Amino acid sequence: MGEGVGNEPQLFPYISSANIACGYHAGDEETMRAVIRMAKSYRVSIGVHPSFEDRENFGRTMQSISTGAIYDLVTKQLVLFATIAQQENAVMTHVKPHGALYNLSAKNADVATAIAHAVKDFDEDLLLYGLSGSYSLSTATSLGLKTIAEVFADRTYQDDGSLTPRSLPGARLETRSAMAQQVLQMVLDKKLTSVTGKIIPIQADSVCVHSDGPNAVILAKHLFELLQQNNIAVKAKSNQ
Amino acid sequence: MGEGVGNEPQLFPYISSANIACGYHAGDEETMRAVIRMAKSYRVSIGVHPSFEDRENFGRTMQSISTGAIYDLVTKQLVLFATIAQQENAVMTHVKPHGALYNLSAKNADVATAIAHAVKDFDEDLLLYGLSGSYSLSTATSLGLKTIAEVFADRTYQDDGSLTPRSLPGARLETRSAMAQQVLQMVLDKKLTSVTGKIIPIQADSVCVHSDGPNAVILAKHLFELLQQNNIAVKAKSNQ
Amino acid sequence: MGEGVGNEPQLFPYISSANIACGYHAGDEETMRAVIRMAKSYRVSIGVHPSFEDRENFGRTMQSISTGAIYDLVTKQLVLFATIAQQENAVMTHVKPHGALYNLSAKNADVATAIAHAVKDFDEDLLLYGLSGSYSLSTATSLGLKTIAEVFADRTYQDDGSLTPRSLPGARLETRSAMAQQVLQMVLDKKLTSVTGKIIPIQADSVCVHSDGPNAVILAKHLFELLQQNNIAVKAKSNQ
Amino acid sequence: MGEGVGNEPQLFPYISSANIACGYHAGDEETMRAVIRMAKSYRVSIGVHPSFEDRENFGRTMQSISTGAIYDLVTKQLVLFATIAQQENAVMTHVKPHGALYNLSAKNADVATAIAHAVKDFDEDLLLYGLSGSYSLSTATSLGLKTIAEVFADRTYQDDGSLTPRSLPGARLETRSAMAQQVLQMVLDKKLTSVTGKIIPIQADSVCVHSDGPNAVILAKHLFELLQQNNIAVKAKSNQ
Repeated sequence: MGEGVGNEPQLFPYISSANIACGYHAGDEETMRAVIRMAKSYRVSIGVHPSFEDRENFGRTMQSISTGAIYDLVTKQLVLFATIAQQENAVMTHVKPHGALYNLSAKNADVATAIAHAVKDFDEDLLLYGLSGSYSLSTATSLGLKTIAEVFADRTYQDDGSLTPRSLPGARLETRSAMAQQVLQMVLDKKLTSVTGKIIPIQADSVCVHSDGPNAVILAKHLFELLQQNNIAVKAKSNQ
Repeated sequence: MGEGVGNEPQLFPYISSANIACGYHAGDEETMRAVIRMAKSYRVSIGVHPSFEDRENFGRTMQSISTGAIYDLVTKQLVLFATIAQQENAVMTHVKPHGALYNLSAKNADVATAIAHAVKDFDEDLLLYGLSGSYSLSTATSLGLKTIAEVFADRTYQDDGSLTPRSLPGARLETRSAMAQQVLQMVLDKKLTSVTGKIIPIQADSVCVHSDGPNAVILAKHLFELLQQNNIAVKAKSNQ
Repeated sequence: MGEGVGNEPQLFPYISSANIACGYHAGDEETMRAVIRMAKSYRVSIGVHPSFEDRENFGRTMQSISTGAIYDLVTKQLVLFATIAQQENAVMTHVKPHGALYNLSAKNADVATAIAHAVKDFDEDLLLYGLSGSYSLSTATSLGLKTIAEVFADRTYQDDGSLTPRSLPGARLETRSAMAQQVLQMVLDKKLTSVTGKIIPIQADSVCVHSDGPNAVILAKHLFELLQQNNIAVKAKSNQ
Repeated sequence: MGEGVGNEPQLFPYISSANIACGYHAGDEETMRAVIRMAKSYRVSIGVHPSFEDRENFGRTMQSISTGAIYDLVTKQLVLFATIAQQENAVMTHVKPHGALYNLSAKNADVATAIAHAVKDFDEDLLLYGLSGSYSLSTATSLGLKTIAEVFADRTYQDDGSLTPRSLPGARLETRSAMAQQVLQMVLDKKLTSVTGKIIPIQADSVCVHSDGPNAVILAKHLFELLQQNNIAVKAKSNQ
């Protein structure tokens, strides 16, 4: 959130935690402050959404920078966010890397370690959100951080539990019923069906909804109602 | 608007006319009704945003259908929109084709003619929005329709006044100052500077802002303030 | 508006001009700024709502102060409001005295003259709102100001065209149909039926809706829809 | 809430539980539904606000009806509210009588008993809100209901812990600092200082904010920030 799309008030009723851009891929201090205030009004947990410094490509382009530079990059965004949150008397609960940094952290243990260290050194009570089953989480867990395993409602999965790349056909689920089936299977059974039909285990603590693009609000509403109808509370995990 | 992004209330303060999806590329009757009500609250003029029937690709994929089929396609969306607008006691003022249909109409006189006929046969007082300098407008004008010439703040133009295709590098202006310069040159001087540096004439009745994607609201606010500071009223043309 | 009730966004869709408190009976600079911004978003005309200095009684208690002091009182609130409006790039269009000052101005030509002079000396293009048929308007007109004659949907009138005092029984119309009948008679026929059944002439340029208290939004919505269904545009008069 | 003032979205950020009118003193089914939806968006607990049937006087006039009639009156409003809440997939958590019914229940054990029986017979898990130290609560507790003791930030108290009647001078606290002092003393020390200066014990589970009238939103915001700055969480009690 805080990426200039401007649909935060329409999304907040259907989510329990928000990841807020810090000006590195989108947003700025004024936006951060405004979104933090809104999130507080709607009782939505807030977290940092650190990114590579890349406003031009919305943080979606991979960068080759050292793990030390990644540590610094994440730390800077943590500091900035925490300062504004404190000024607004709001509680920062979590961290979720954005875009290319998120994807790199999922696959690269060194990057995951750098991020986890940055988070731990800043505040060891922060929850770290990452791709379920990825290095992002296993690395953070081994450092003693509490983690949140993210899954996707509208993406398909490979046999190894990784996401089908967006560049491949069949990367996205198109129908509401397919999404509903996948989400319920993941949340209730802790399993998913891969693109080849294989049933694999998965941990699903949080379902990711992107705020940009058409149907963002419709998807969020649909998932909220689906979970509610199945007596699954949409509720942020406390970091206390 | 009405495309499921959900940022309408944040955009309305900065625009004077809205094009509302009719379910063919996005949205549905419930969304149309909700957006029409909101637009009325904010005193924003409303118009139909007819599209190819293509929800999967958000109406952005070209289709080869007959001009008769295009006439029918547009007419159906006009009828649907007008029905809901009337139920909401709202005045429908204009028509703007969406996505691939908009682009095709700009370049293809037969398609432009089919659309203009559909609009004229439905209600000859409707304003037709189209790409400035394109067949969309010249064809409609020759049929006696009133037109609105659209320009883009964040796209570059070729020497012949057409938009640089998005697939080419340099298709987009990246900085606020470049956009501001282009918009003021178009609106105040009725001229623009093409990618090769040539100065060409252009009619600029309306500046298009897309509601999807990052920075939508930020761009709309920026343009509104730019125009206001230069004493250019942001105001919909009446169709009466 | 700007009186701390907080229902401005719900009222704006149904009104065309707003009177904003300046801190003398309610509100403060922060509230004025916020309401001016909102009004701009909804394309609602804004005006000053000057009052006796009396926060404790919400400006509803009569004060015996000299006409010179009234001139100064109104001037100070005009200056304050104009400063904030200009900072917000918003156009101030009118003035409407509040509460006890409004009532006093209606009946007392000296007070009405002091107010009218204050407005004229500050900006002679400002419209002055006042009780239809009262000294507030006749005095202002004789000084060359343009005026707006206000009527009330939910109050009854005496034979001389004055409002039945709130302290008397029958001061208020209770049913929607009675209000609708009175408003249409005033706006369409320029007449009203007094409490004794006498038909008297009345000028109705604007229908007042109070923003405080239960049913404020319901009344505003009801009147807006009533006027719209009778093809009466709800539109602020320009002061240009 | 749901009383037609229309300031619910501005109040929700600062409160944790809302009492919603059922059409007996204000509101109607459409309003109830709209407010229940909004409350859900803001994660605010919802409860019934039953009243004497008296729209003309906003439920503020005392009525002499039998305890059987009161039982029926409350039950009807419970049924109506529960039906709409269920349709909206919202959880109803509590009951708070309104206006004259609230005041009567505080002083009259028979009325309090009738109300408590109606609540218990309908759903014994519902929380009953009432004036701290009054018959409303002692009666309900003796019947086995869980209760919430309400206090007031802007009213003064008599030596016996009852509110100073509004008709008497000094019934209201006028300054923010006086309200802040009273609220903190009640919440932190479980004591209050009466109008005569006597220190008396009081239970303060919930601070009441009226949604109608000037300063409603300002008072709610002020109290929220006061409590937050003193590390007192503004949070609805669960009825589970």
